[in-house]
Amino acid sequence: DAGADNDLYINQAVVFIEDAIQYRSINHRVDSKSLWLYRWYYSRTCQWILSLTITVILALAFVEEPSSLTVTSDVRYRLPAWNPPCGLTESVELLCFLVFVADVSVKSYLIGWKEFWKNKWLMAYILTLIVSLTDWIVSLSFSCTVSLRIRRILRPFFLLQNSSMMKKTLKSINSTLPEMASVVLLLALHLSLFTMFAMLLFARTKDNQQDKEWVVYFRNLPDSLTSLLVLLTAANNPDVMIPAYSKNRAYSIFFILFTVLGNLFLMNLLTAIIYNQFRGYLLKSVQSSLFRRRLGIRAAFEVLSTLKETPASAQQSYVSAGALQQVLQKAEMDSRCKQAILRSLKMCSCDQLSAAQFQKLFEELDKDAIKQHPPSPEYQSHFMQKLQFAFGHPYFGYLGNVVALANIISICVVLVMDADKQPSERDDFFLGAINCFFILYYLLEMLLKILAMGLRRYLSYPSNRFDGLLTVILLILEISTFAVYGFPHPGWRPEFMGLLSLWDMVRLVNMLIVFRFLRIIPNMKFMALVVTTLLDLVKNLRAFAGILVVVFYAFAITGIMLFKGAVVPLGNNSIIYFKGKCDFMVISAHFQAEGVHCLLYLLSVNLICRWAKIYFVAWWLISSVIWVNLFVALLLENFIHKWDRRCHRESLSDIEYQRTVELMFRDVLEEPTEEELMEKLHQHPHLQLCR
Amino acid sequence: DAGADNDLYINQAVVFIEDAIQYRSINHRVDSKSLWLYRWYYSRTCQWILSLTITVILALAFVEEPSSLTVTSDVRYRLPAWNPPCGLTESVELLCFLVFVADVSVKSYLIGWKEFWKNKWLMAYILTLIVSLTDWIVSLSFSCTVSLRIRRILRPFFLLQNSSMMKKTLKSINSTLPEMASVVLLLALHLSLFTMFAMLLFARTKDNQQDKEWVVYFRNLPDSLTSLLVLLTAANNPDVMIPAYSKNRAYSIFFILFTVLGNLFLMNLLTAIIYNQFRGYLLKSVQSSLFRRRLGIRAAFEVLSTLKETPASAQQSYVSAGALQQVLQKAEMDSRCKQAILRSLKMCSCDQLSAAQFQKLFEELDKDAIKQHPPSPEYQSHFMQKLQFAFGHPYFGYLGNVVALANIISICVVLVMDADKQPSERDDFFLGAINCFFILYYLLEMLLKILAMGLRRYLSYPSNRFDGLLTVILLILEISTFAVYGFPHPGWRPEFMGLLSLWDMVRLVNMLIVFRFLRIIPNMKFMALVVTTLLDLVKNLRAFAGILVVVFYAFAITGIMLFKGAVVPLGNNSIIYFKGKCDFMVISAHFQAEGVHCLLYLLSVNLICRWAKIYFVAWWLISSVIWVNLFVALLLENFIHKWDRRCHRESLSDIEYQRTVELMFRDVLEEPTEEELMEKLHQHPHLQLCR
Repeated sequence: DAGADNDLYINQAVVFIEDAIQYRSINHRVDSKSLWLYRWYYSRTCQWILSLTITVILALAFVEEPSSLTVTSDVRYRLPAWNPPCGLTESVELLCFLVFVADVSVKSYLIGWKEFWKNKWLMAYILTLIVSLTDWIVSLSFSCTVSLRIRRILRPFFLLQNSSMMKKTLKSINSTLPEMASVVLLLALHLSLFTMFAMLLFARTKDNQQDKEWVVYFRNLPDSLTSLLVLLTAANNPDVMIPAYSKNRAYSIFFILFTVLGNLFLMNLLTAIIYNQFRGYLLKSVQSSLFRRRLGIRAAFEVLSTLKETPASAQQSYVSAGALQQVLQKAEMDSRCKQAILRSLKMCSCDQLSAAQFQKLFEELDKDAIKQHPPSPEYQSHFMQKLQFAFGHPYFGYLGNVVALANIISICVVLVMDADKQPSERDDFFLGAINCFFILYYLLEMLLKILAMGLRRYLSYPSNRFDGLLTVILLILEISTFAVYGFPHPGWRPEFMGLLSLWDMVRLVNMLIVFRFLRIIPNMKFMALVVTTLLDLVKNLRAFAGILVVVFYAFAITGIMLFKGAVVPLGNNSIIYFKGKCDFMVISAHFQAEGVHCLLYLLSVNLICRWAKIYFVAWWLISSVIWVNLFVALLLENFIHKWDRRCHRESLSDIEYQRTVELMFRDVLEEPTEEELMEKLHQHPHLQLCR
Repeated sequence: DAGADNDLYINQAVVFIEDAIQYRSINHRVDSKSLWLYRWYYSRTCQWILSLTITVILALAFVEEPSSLTVTSDVRYRLPAWNPPCGLTESVELLCFLVFVADVSVKSYLIGWKEFWKNKWLMAYILTLIVSLTDWIVSLSFSCTVSLRIRRILRPFFLLQNSSMMKKTLKSINSTLPEMASVVLLLALHLSLFTMFAMLLFARTKDNQQDKEWVVYFRNLPDSLTSLLVLLTAANNPDVMIPAYSKNRAYSIFFILFTVLGNLFLMNLLTAIIYNQFRGYLLKSVQSSLFRRRLGIRAAFEVLSTLKETPASAQQSYVSAGALQQVLQKAEMDSRCKQAILRSLKMCSCDQLSAAQFQKLFEELDKDAIKQHPPSPEYQSHFMQKLQFAFGHPYFGYLGNVVALANIISICVVLVMDADKQPSERDDFFLGAINCFFILYYLLEMLLKILAMGLRRYLSYPSNRFDGLLTVILLILEISTFAVYGFPHPGWRPEFMGLLSLWDMVRLVNMLIVFRFLRIIPNMKFMALVVTTLLDLVKNLRAFAGILVVVFYAFAITGIMLFKGAVVPLGNNSIIYFKGKCDFMVISAHFQAEGVHCLLYLLSVNLICRWAKIYFVAWWLISSVIWVNLFVALLLENFIHKWDRRCHRESLSDIEYQRTVELMFRDVLEEPTEEELMEKLHQHPHLQLCR
């Protein structure tokens, strides 16, 4: 009947508007029950549970058996890690798998059978789940004694498939692969030709004194290849050439040629290629988001225009304002936007909305949220007004910066003077007294600023929040120090008391003061630009960081499985060193370029076996070469965009924009045309449009 | 009188045309004598003498007293370097100075007194000469015993001032400095804040076992600063964090934060800034070259139009074709261009040329030199035609590549098998026989190709020239081997005879074969693109390389002066190591990033004094940070340009363009307008145009 139909159409419109807001695809089932399921699936609770499950299953690696989560990394000192009994982590895992099974079923149902077969990600998801569950059963049936557990390597896939941004980025990276492969091939050719050259050049001679180079670096093909590969990462440079160089300087020409060609040209060529490929990446992704938004809004319009209450017009379809109001009431969206749209709907005062008008109403969604600071309080007294002027003036802020700098310098002086003193000789009086004075000044500054600006205005500036928070923490620390150790006086050197020693307290206070000094950043124009660029970059990098986590997780798990027990405490320094690094990789895997650097150095001195070599070379290629280059490409892209538009913005710098990637590109984006939108809508697998 | 005037005008036009061809400025004196001097000064001989002088004065450093030009760099073994007697190098130097004095006088005279005062480069040139001559006199009057000789550091200036491209590049770099300084400031802030943090974090404790980190890396302010600075170059990573890390894993957070912020963000920000500044650099420089060319041609036109024989026209000025022919006859230019211009002049068959026609005639100068390969010989016999078809076919070339690959593989196999054998056990028969066979094949291939293509066509392809030359060298080597050692037979292991042992001969042959394998490059599309980009880059980089040479020369000379005798052979390995590097810097200074890397590592272990630290840090900043970033910026610029236009060119790939930077940008260049040209011409200090 008509009423139920109307309800359905309203619900469809609500879901399409929500899709538009979240930049989601609208290709899902649109019958009543599916819509309810769809809204429930994308509700905050559901998505939060899913994220939690992914976090839990990834975090399991830290408590599972060959984990290395101990305070020290030194194999000689560390206590054995806690081993959970068999079945504990496994049951948590099973719970997670059940959530994933529910997730994949709902997702598959919602996009429909026909679409399901086209969606490779969903198929892979199901396959991963099947493999993981099988592996889980095998593992339990052998009561956890099987050390090879494939499901652990597969885990990051769950993270990957849950983020559309990461999937998009991966696709982008994938399209760059052929060109990257060409450069890597070129590098391989470079490496192999030079290896042959090196083996011919540094061949074994009759005089054993003369062939040090051969003995250490070029004894056979794998050795030579490794030496030169490591030279490419610059880890063993110039050690590798010293023996030859001290025999004859001319040998250095070989190494110079190799490094210049390999490091300067080919490696940077990789940067150029990746940058070239990613130049349009951000723009393209923002463009496709825009298309999704326009499509969702258009779909809502089309659905609403088929409502029975609308008078059928031959030429154009219209939507009644009442229906739209109903939809807006039901849709979940930012309340500021909702109010703005309702307001403009009232202002327009037209009963029937055309498609263009409908789209125009929703342009509010694309607009900057201009942040208005609350007004300063208005004081009646003349004296208070003067005070307000004085302490609200920027110069008062500059004075604060100068005081902070003075504090930093005083700490620095004390540090230099005390550098070589024994802890027992140290006198904390001077530093204690000075810090006490400075913290009092900070407190005063904060209070005066609050007086001048009012608490709400004060808190609306991020720099003030940063400042105030640190001041309060410093105050609390200082008060608790005095409560425990009394006021500072000459020879103030009490013994250890309470949670922290006085010395630790003073150090903590000093660190916070150094950290507080960062408040000067917004006052320096170039620095502010750099910092905002970096913050933007961090936002845009989330997808890349996610992929990096996926890769590192897989590598770390593989590494743990490969090298479990391979490193034993021999009392030998270099072995411990290596152990330090191996752990290191697991925990702070993103510490990449540098960590690998040394691993490769170890490669060159043949501490580890051939398999480990292949593992580390793969890791170096992915983490150091490809990821760092991707990062540089994104940084270049972001920075150049920012730089070009710095001039535009400077006049508006008072207003703080909550800038998003979408807004950054707004003036270069192309609006999708009516035809494109309608064509896409007609391709919708579940929605039958009447016309 | 009119005849002499006409001669003068013709000569002026000739010089202006030559200026246009060489992209030189036309702001010089234009009277008859000056013109003669100008043409003489810019004649090949004169410029060649000047370049030679610059080379000689720069090369003097290799033979002057504290030089290190010996075969080995090991201080324990090397013989004392040859010390020229006092007065020898000095007299060569004086000769050079005299040439420079002549150079600067001619240059100053030619641009005229008024212009001279505006030209800071010329003033600096004169100043440098005065300082150098004074220093020379002081040095000689103390009979070469003064070790501080400023003139040696000033020498690279002579190289710098002689190249307009280098001066332009320097100006460009100069304009980037403020922004680079901002980032360097940011880096300094980053470094100092983290140093304070580190000193507070890794303070001395009561337990001596626990403060290894403090003892080794953070003992006092300079130590801490150095440790973190070196961490920024990644040279001492992760050594610097191992003691702290093995105490508590959480300490690694500090180092990770420092490295991510410093290395990933700030360092790459520097790349972004430099790239952003240099994005337009090439285009701008090419644009200004184009302006100079058009200006020179226009000036020639204006001068010729005042010739008496031309009928004075009120509206427009014209140039007679005869006068132009006379000018072209006299001007020194590429004969191909000259012929083409004369041909189009005849074709146009107009007696009077307007300014636009005049410019159009000279457009031939901007055109690509399309290289036409000579035709293949036409054989009468049917059999020969078949042969020609077979051996001229690309597949024959591919076969050659396959054979070369087979040869490489066979050498590789022998190398792997012989890797661990003693020289006395080695049997050269197998390799000798195989190489003999392959070289015969190469000879045959070359001859057949010459047969099919004809000698002239064969030689017109660079890949064939490369191929043929190597084949001939290989043949000569092989023949001389057989002449000395006889034909290979099992157990072919003759003793040392003649200039080279058999083993050395075989090695040399093998290296050449490996080198010859590079002939496959043009057959692989992507590789060909990369190689042409690199070759282009090398052309565009000449100016940068020149500046690099200047900087390195100054650094090397300063280094020699600072550290002369500072490193003595102690029998201690690390000292010799350092010595190895110090020399190294002098000779192969462009081996920068890597060399410094280790020097900085040495810094961190406090092998060298504070002055050396400052010297090396400055060197690292300039050579590694700034220069590498400049290089990356240029590479990105070049590569992206090439990449974008790859599609256009692909259809034309058969024709080999002699591509220059000017041609690369031709479709984006703007032609200067008539008004700009005339305005510039009227500002000419020496040329009085009648109208």
